[in-house]
Amino acid sequence: MASDDAKEPLLSLSVDASHQFNEKNLLKRRRYPRSNGAPSLRIDIPNKNVIESLPHPDLISAQDRFSFKRVFMFFGVYLSAGTLCFYLARHQIKGKKTSGVLDAIYFCVVTMTTVGYGDLVPDSTLAKLLACVFVFSGMGLVGFVLSKAADYIVEKEEILLVKAIYMREKVGPAEILKEAESNKAKYKFLTALTLLLVLVTVGTIFLYQFEGLDFIDAFYCVCATVTTLGYGDESFSTEGGRLFAVFWIVMSTLCLAQFFLYLAELYTENRQRVLIKWALTRDLTTSDLEAADLDNDKVVSVSEFIVYKLKEMGKITEEDISVVMEGFKNLDVDHSGMLTTSDLMLSESPQAQT
Amino acid sequence: MASDDAKEPLLSLSVDASHQFNEKNLLKRRRYPRSNGAPSLRIDIPNKNVIESLPHPDLISAQDRFSFKRVFMFFGVYLSAGTLCFYLARHQIKGKKTSGVLDAIYFCVVTMTTVGYGDLVPDSTLAKLLACVFVFSGMGLVGFVLSKAADYIVEKEEILLVKAIYMREKVGPAEILKEAESNKAKYKFLTALTLLLVLVTVGTIFLYQFEGLDFIDAFYCVCATVTTLGYGDESFSTEGGRLFAVFWIVMSTLCLAQFFLYLAELYTENRQRVLIKWALTRDLTTSDLEAADLDNDKVVSVSEFIVYKLKEMGKITEEDISVVMEGFKNLDVDHSGMLTTSDLMLSESPQAQT
Repeated sequence: MASDDAKEPLLSLSVDASHQFNEKNLLKRRRYPRSNGAPSLRIDIPNKNVIESLPHPDLISAQDRFSFKRVFMFFGVYLSAGTLCFYLARHQIKGKKTSGVLDAIYFCVVTMTTVGYGDLVPDSTLAKLLACVFVFSGMGLVGFVLSKAADYIVEKEEILLVKAIYMREKVGPAEILKEAESNKAKYKFLTALTLLLVLVTVGTIFLYQFEGLDFIDAFYCVCATVTTLGYGDESFSTEGGRLFAVFWIVMSTLCLAQFFLYLAELYTENRQRVLIKWALTRDLTTSDLEAADLDNDKVVSVSEFIVYKLKEMGKITEEDISVVMEGFKNLDVDHSGMLTTSDLMLSESPQAQT
Repeated sequence: MASDDAKEPLLSLSVDASHQFNEKNLLKRRRYPRSNGAPSLRIDIPNKNVIESLPHPDLISAQDRFSFKRVFMFFGVYLSAGTLCFYLARHQIKGKKTSGVLDAIYFCVVTMTTVGYGDLVPDSTLAKLLACVFVFSGMGLVGFVLSKAADYIVEKEEILLVKAIYMREKVGPAEILKEAESNKAKYKFLTALTLLLVLVTVGTIFLYQFEGLDFIDAFYCVCATVTTLGYGDESFSTEGGRLFAVFWIVMSTLCLAQFFLYLAELYTENRQRVLIKWALTRDLTTSDLEAADLDNDKVVSVSEFIVYKLKEMGKITEEDISVVMEGFKNLDVDHSGMLTTSDLMLSESPQAQT
């Protein structure tokens, strides 16, 4: 069946890099405000039938959770393989060493995140080539994590943040959820910022307390790490420090990257809002009416208006429209210019099918 | 006037991070294939009036060129300021030195791109804080460049690549352009890959020839640089090497980042194609017809079908539709459920306005 055929690839294809900046997201997938008034307009679709055959946004979010698990799995495989390789090649790595396995995993994390302090460096052709392989695959993996898991985690934290901000005003969970949804980019940005500040503070205190750096050096080392600059003049040189670093480096570098992504998203959302506001408030002209009138009946129906305005807002393109129109023509078996139940019946009878 | 108000912010707001992954782009903005047949369907809009009041996709690409200049300006300001600061603080930077200004600009580039070899490191509180400021602002700038200029450059190169690939088959420039447009993500990815391979080769040869590294070390140093890993055990230590590095590091790190972005874009595009194909080939059911029938007239017009299918494809959301429907209701002054010239006239007469 057609719907089964389609479901499979949709579930297995799960890296969706557009996820971050997607305007679908910006306009809040999960809210389905009913259009008040206008009883003749019925777009509150999802009836059971549609949900069954269609990767509905809610199902896509379940799919996100699914690939979130996969991300963790990839991450585990990568770190295990890296640790094993660098442990076996530990005599081909020079620099400040602590204990075998810990140094291997620390070196793997420092390489994967491209921090590259240089406190441990490969010292043989094999180790150098291994480092090259792990840094390229690490970059890909980090991008994968950024496009999926980090977003998922920040979304979970987001509600906590909005709750904290609105704690004093006594509002119910429904209002909090609504507030978080309608300013999604803003709260995601604030959440990433909060997490980042926490991680920077924790890292600075740790380096000051346990690595014996003075305050400025500790902060400088934190900045050099979260940005993946990693000059290497200051780094984690004790056993405890490297254990801490393994977790802290992964979290803080991802968090900073996510922070920049949300900053860009916030910007795009604001830009989009300006565009939408403009498209909906500008005066309509006669030539707009002519252009919007797809079926040439001299009046613009609500759906024609939707197509015209969404195109004007840049949400859909001429190409999107013409692709779907091709599909329409194929389905319009009786060439009436309208899809009716008679088209469905005609397409079911074998002689009408091509 | 409304259109003037809106034009201003659209031109000044030009960082559009969604640009990279945007489905609008994936479905090729610049192609306007006429829908063959169906003479009653007229969507080949852009009449003069619309273009004047609307930031049409073609104008947006002009806007891209505009912000491309701005990117270069920001870049120049950043590098000048960085070079000046680090030159003035040159006695507070320790490590392998060559000549004053060159080291300052080299240090600035190594910091901005987060390569951070550590062959030059700040050695005072002031210099350390300066480095922190420059690495954060550098990351932001690199993101800005990635979202705009790099895309623009790759698009220019793309045509050359497609031309080179199709050189043997004698095809005209129009076919080449069409081929490039309809497989945009694929050719952008291939272009970035080609550029990356060229830059890696050039870098390796340079390090081998002029920095006296053996072949493996040269390649290893190139890999550590393009990925911004920068362990720092191998780096550019001669005057000529650092001059080369200033240009090469900026180009190659941006190129690798762009490569990963296009890889993600390619993935998204393929996923999108599967979804579109599925949405347009699956059998329509009676409940689909009911759900698509916005105005409840028991038939599905072409524009209703477009709205329904684009929603199914995930291109537009329930929220997009309801926002535009609000606008429709405001414009439908005579409450006929259709926009006609009478609505326009009514809205122009002052008593009808709110």
